Amino acid sequence: MPGFSWRPSRGAVRLTFVVAWVALAPVAGAETHRLKPTVGYPTFAAREPVLTVAPGDVLESETLWGAWYENPGGKWPGEVGPIRIEGAQPGDTLVVEILKVKPNRDTAVSTQGGTFGALVPDSGTAFLNDMFPRARYVWRLDREAMTGTVDLPGSAAKAVTIPLRPMIGRVAVAPEGAEAFGGLWPGRFGGNMDAADVREGTTVYLPVFHEGALFYFGDVHAAQGDGEVCGSGLETSAEVAFRFGVVRRTIAWPRLEDAEHLMVAGSARPLSDALRIAFVELVGWLVDEHGFSRPDAYQLVSQVGVVRVANVVDPLYTAVAKFPKRYLPPPQTP
Amino acid sequence: MPGFSWRPSRGAVRLTFVVAWVALAPVAGAETHRLKPTVGYPTFAAREPVLTVAPGDVLESETLWGAWYENPGGKWPGEVGPIRIEGAQPGDTLVVEILKVKPNRDTAVSTQGGTFGALVPDSGTAFLNDMFPRARYVWRLDREAMTGTVDLPGSAAKAVTIPLRPMIGRVAVAPEGAEAFGGLWPGRFGGNMDAADVREGTTVYLPVFHEGALFYFGDVHAAQGDGEVCGSGLETSAEVAFRFGVVRRTIAWPRLEDAEHLMVAGSARPLSDALRIAFVELVGWLVDEHGFSRPDAYQLVSQVGVVRVANVVDPLYTAVAKFPKRYLPPPQTP
Amino acid sequence: MPGFSWRPSRGAVRLTFVVAWVALAPVAGAETHRLKPTVGYPTFAAREPVLTVAPGDVLESETLWGAWYENPGGKWPGEVGPIRIEGAQPGDTLVVEILKVKPNRDTAVSTQGGTFGALVPDSGTAFLNDMFPRARYVWRLDREAMTGTVDLPGSAAKAVTIPLRPMIGRVAVAPEGAEAFGGLWPGRFGGNMDAADVREGTTVYLPVFHEGALFYFGDVHAAQGDGEVCGSGLETSAEVAFRFGVVRRTIAWPRLEDAEHLMVAGSARPLSDALRIAFVELVGWLVDEHGFSRPDAYQLVSQVGVVRVANVVDPLYTAVAKFPKRYLPPPQTP
Amino acid sequence: MPGFSWRPSRGAVRLTFVVAWVALAPVAGAETHRLKPTVGYPTFAAREPVLTVAPGDVLESETLWGAWYENPGGKWPGEVGPIRIEGAQPGDTLVVEILKVKPNRDTAVSTQGGTFGALVPDSGTAFLNDMFPRARYVWRLDREAMTGTVDLPGSAAKAVTIPLRPMIGRVAVAPEGAEAFGGLWPGRFGGNMDAADVREGTTVYLPVFHEGALFYFGDVHAAQGDGEVCGSGLETSAEVAFRFGVVRRTIAWPRLEDAEHLMVAGSARPLSDALRIAFVELVGWLVDEHGFSRPDAYQLVSQVGVVRVANVVDPLYTAVAKFPKRYLPPPQTP
Repeated sequence: MPGFSWRPSRGAVRLTFVVAWVALAPVAGAETHRLKPTVGYPTFAAREPVLTVAPGDVLESETLWGAWYENPGGKWPGEVGPIRIEGAQPGDTLVVEILKVKPNRDTAVSTQGGTFGALVPDSGTAFLNDMFPRARYVWRLDREAMTGTVDLPGSAAKAVTIPLRPMIGRVAVAPEGAEAFGGLWPGRFGGNMDAADVREGTTVYLPVFHEGALFYFGDVHAAQGDGEVCGSGLETSAEVAFRFGVVRRTIAWPRLEDAEHLMVAGSARPLSDALRIAFVELVGWLVDEHGFSRPDAYQLVSQVGVVRVANVVDPLYTAVAKFPKRYLPPPQTP
Repeated sequence: MPGFSWRPSRGAVRLTFVVAWVALAPVAGAETHRLKPTVGYPTFAAREPVLTVAPGDVLESETLWGAWYENPGGKWPGEVGPIRIEGAQPGDTLVVEILKVKPNRDTAVSTQGGTFGALVPDSGTAFLNDMFPRARYVWRLDREAMTGTVDLPGSAAKAVTIPLRPMIGRVAVAPEGAEAFGGLWPGRFGGNMDAADVREGTTVYLPVFHEGALFYFGDVHAAQGDGEVCGSGLETSAEVAFRFGVVRRTIAWPRLEDAEHLMVAGSARPLSDALRIAFVELVGWLVDEHGFSRPDAYQLVSQVGVVRVANVVDPLYTAVAKFPKRYLPPPQTP
Repeated sequence: MPGFSWRPSRGAVRLTFVVAWVALAPVAGAETHRLKPTVGYPTFAAREPVLTVAPGDVLESETLWGAWYENPGGKWPGEVGPIRIEGAQPGDTLVVEILKVKPNRDTAVSTQGGTFGALVPDSGTAFLNDMFPRARYVWRLDREAMTGTVDLPGSAAKAVTIPLRPMIGRVAVAPEGAEAFGGLWPGRFGGNMDAADVREGTTVYLPVFHEGALFYFGDVHAAQGDGEVCGSGLETSAEVAFRFGVVRRTIAWPRLEDAEHLMVAGSARPLSDALRIAFVELVGWLVDEHGFSRPDAYQLVSQVGVVRVANVVDPLYTAVAKFPKRYLPPPQTP
Repeated sequence: MPGFSWRPSRGAVRLTFVVAWVALAPVAGAETHRLKPTVGYPTFAAREPVLTVAPGDVLESETLWGAWYENPGGKWPGEVGPIRIEGAQPGDTLVVEILKVKPNRDTAVSTQGGTFGALVPDSGTAFLNDMFPRARYVWRLDREAMTGTVDLPGSAAKAVTIPLRPMIGRVAVAPEGAEAFGGLWPGRFGGNMDAADVREGTTVYLPVFHEGALFYFGDVHAAQGDGEVCGSGLETSAEVAFRFGVVRRTIAWPRLEDAEHLMVAGSARPLSDALRIAFVELVGWLVDEHGFSRPDAYQLVSQVGVVRVANVVDPLYTAVAKFPKRYLPPPQTP
């Protein structure tokens, strides 16, 4: 990618108010890498990278498709990665600009019932009641019109068509230490947050726990309601593209940024605790980077904060707390 | 209000698909009542009505202002009511169209810290840590521009101005039986849901537990962030107007409807449980009134459902689950 | 009751280490009152007392029996009270020594399933699953042998006999302000804590919110497992006797004391929060009354504390945190 | 260990009522292995075994001691293992009889405060309040008298001595699939349950997910209060001995058995969910193995069930639900 002059993402610039985020020196000639994934991993964990990129580089790839999408009981294909980002050190923050999320199939699948989902007892919410029936819906995707259609023959609405809003369910770094979390887990490392805000145009910030960060991605949803309450969105695969950066600052939980909002994604059970994590980190962000006193940040976030319930079905639930960037003070010259 | 021809609210019409909601016979000449409240009550409870209205009647009034708004430690003025709606019987549903919510003061107050609020230990979430400092912010309201401004002298943003979005924190009927819940409680009876969707243009449906329903209202917020995390919005008073109706159907939890959404407000701790209540009721609504099978309703609500976290600070937290009305099947002729 | 010389309960004496609890002057001739209750109330609330007693007086009475115990769907008889204790003022602590809990029926009833109980979705834990079947077990009580027997014809164990351990499900004062909580609620005012430690030989301390304290009692269980998970114990009625006292100290949550333990009963949902309340109050008790530093109390309670899960079925769950009195320092002479 | 005639543990015998648990054929000459551990692992995960034993064999070993016990901020030594049990296959149940837990040091350490523990905000329960101070208590162990003593110079009780009740905080198999949970995690695989009932004389049943089961152990507490609320018990090391067995039955969560009780250890946040898991599994155990109908088991467990709150501090909380074995029907001859 000749002529590319790397610059930290706007998010990273934005994060410079109190203490400057020192971006790694940009690689002279940033590259665009094309990865055709052939193997998926069932866990987020530190393992040999499939590819090494430099800060400023772009990765074009796709998410995995596999038996899970084809038939009931089929095996999940796992996530793509890990991608090693040169120079990323434990304590740094990985910056991932999501440049593209474009579904590349004509169908999407959503399963429900059994022992997974918010409205049925799951592995963490045991009850004596009989199981709610399992079902599997195949949605037809119109990638021109960007709509999805499902047949509901047993309902008065015989079929329903909804707009697509593609998102990536899982973006992660390798978790701290020797831990390896299965693909269903979200956490401080990102993972299966199932946050609709992880979409084209969003920048994701993830804490770095291992040399090279070791980035994973997968589980695209063509659309998903808040909370993903039945346990799955319109699960499909997609063309994706990311640009990577690294900043020398430490964050405790994943952060997101788009044109409108600063966001933090907290993951915990119950949902109240996920939401508290997200807001406490968001207040900390405003205090550390944008010159708010702690009480003022608490007050302001209470009046203009927005909450997106990302998922209430995974081993940990995820809540995203958002602060509208229009209320940030203008950046100051150092 | 001569010439007024009462019709059930659009919501009530909407609710007629499977089993017709039988609205009470409209009173021939619906009236507009003007109430100037002089006393507020500290609990939602069955007590002597301050006014009786007929279905179809409009009530113009205002919410109470009192010492709480004027100085720290001041007494809360309580809620206005109860309003008796003629002919409402236990098992019915009260329909309240919110015709107006217009702030009538030049200031709004928000308090935080101490032992109330989502991000500090409260009466239900005890910890050993020292208390977070109490603070009290007075916002200046510009009722022409519909903005609120707060000084933040200790922060880089010296002041912030935000748009107003007036809402009513508390709309309630008298709770079932002889119970009397303090003004901070939400529940099946409505109450202190602190739901931003309870605003001009919304229709609220509340279960009726006592003859006459016994409607209460109060606690207007000129604006409020999702979750009301510091424990209070821009607390002020307002001119309000409601039109009342009654339908002969039974609901378990408060429902809301506006031009875009069917909504259910569930209240419980922790938030996960409030959200489950809201979604289970929403699924039931789609099944009972709109011809969806139970599995289909679960699937669809999972893909297009929207969640608003109303409050995570009151004795019970409130989550609002929303279904976009554009996905409802067309009403059928009976 | 001639010759009776009133003394504060041992508990009250015990509570004098740091700041002396000033008991009300004992009434010269303490009396024994015999109350034959004829009416039960469905709520814990401030209302006209049925009896006034003086500190030091003993009350002999019985709990109510009614249709609920006789047939499915029968009405709950409500609780006995309120008893006014002379001189008790808001901010004081009511001391209730439980002198007797002696079942007075030959049967006890336990119901389960439907929408009440810990292992089925209830009004706070909604799920889409079909309801778990309701059932009603009638236990035969042998009041000589102090055992209860139930037939289980569908099980390999055709019948089971268990020892009785009578306890009082509900002891309460009128809650703060104008609130009126239904008989199923526990809280700061005591109420339906369903704590097995509320039994003969235990002293209960309750915060006083109204002149006269306004004490209620009812809902005897001949036996109950931890958590009362199906939603009911061996529900029956009993002869009961209490001796009342008042101390001029303020407590935030109900406390219990028996020969072995200081205890605090915290009530909240989820159970983690109830348990935190109980432990934070217990630490406070050790600090305020027994000369422990806050960190030392935290450490010690962590190593010798005992938890009893009282109920996980009521509108709030109740956890009892216990501190063995053998680890208290010896009382000091002032 | 010549002459040893292996028999399934009493627990395994007990579990034979409805469908016989088929124990692996006992190895002719069961052996006693002595392992001197030199390395500890930071995660529960499938890795190369350090030792292979046969069903019926006894393992004598010790838990690891390391820098964590010696000084603040010291590194945790990790857990011993994995031990491979010959013939254990995924879907089986590993039987571990705990033959010995005997502290082998003269001190034990308990830390508190900071961001770990039930009564301070931790990584899952974020609040804005200032941190509660960290502290570190060193207890002196008298291994003859079996007591522990701690100095509390800032408290009226200048020192406290308590009886020791040694237990093993962590017993685990390798978790399902490729997951690797850090040593603080409990779960279906056992792990850091911090259950006081995991002590000498108890038999632990763990689900087998990998060939050989891959058993780990560590983290002995000389004593611990219910819930381990400050985040640590009297942490020390011990001589331990286990006898292993394997049965061809599948369990979902760890089970325990001692002379008095059948027990299930459920792990989840919040605590209510952990408790539900434990009780639902306990009901299932009674139904599957002891001839109770599901409703009868629910009823009986509600009246005689005992709950031990194991921990409310780890990434998942652990509750142990216990059923007194005296209420089991007599074993039937097949």
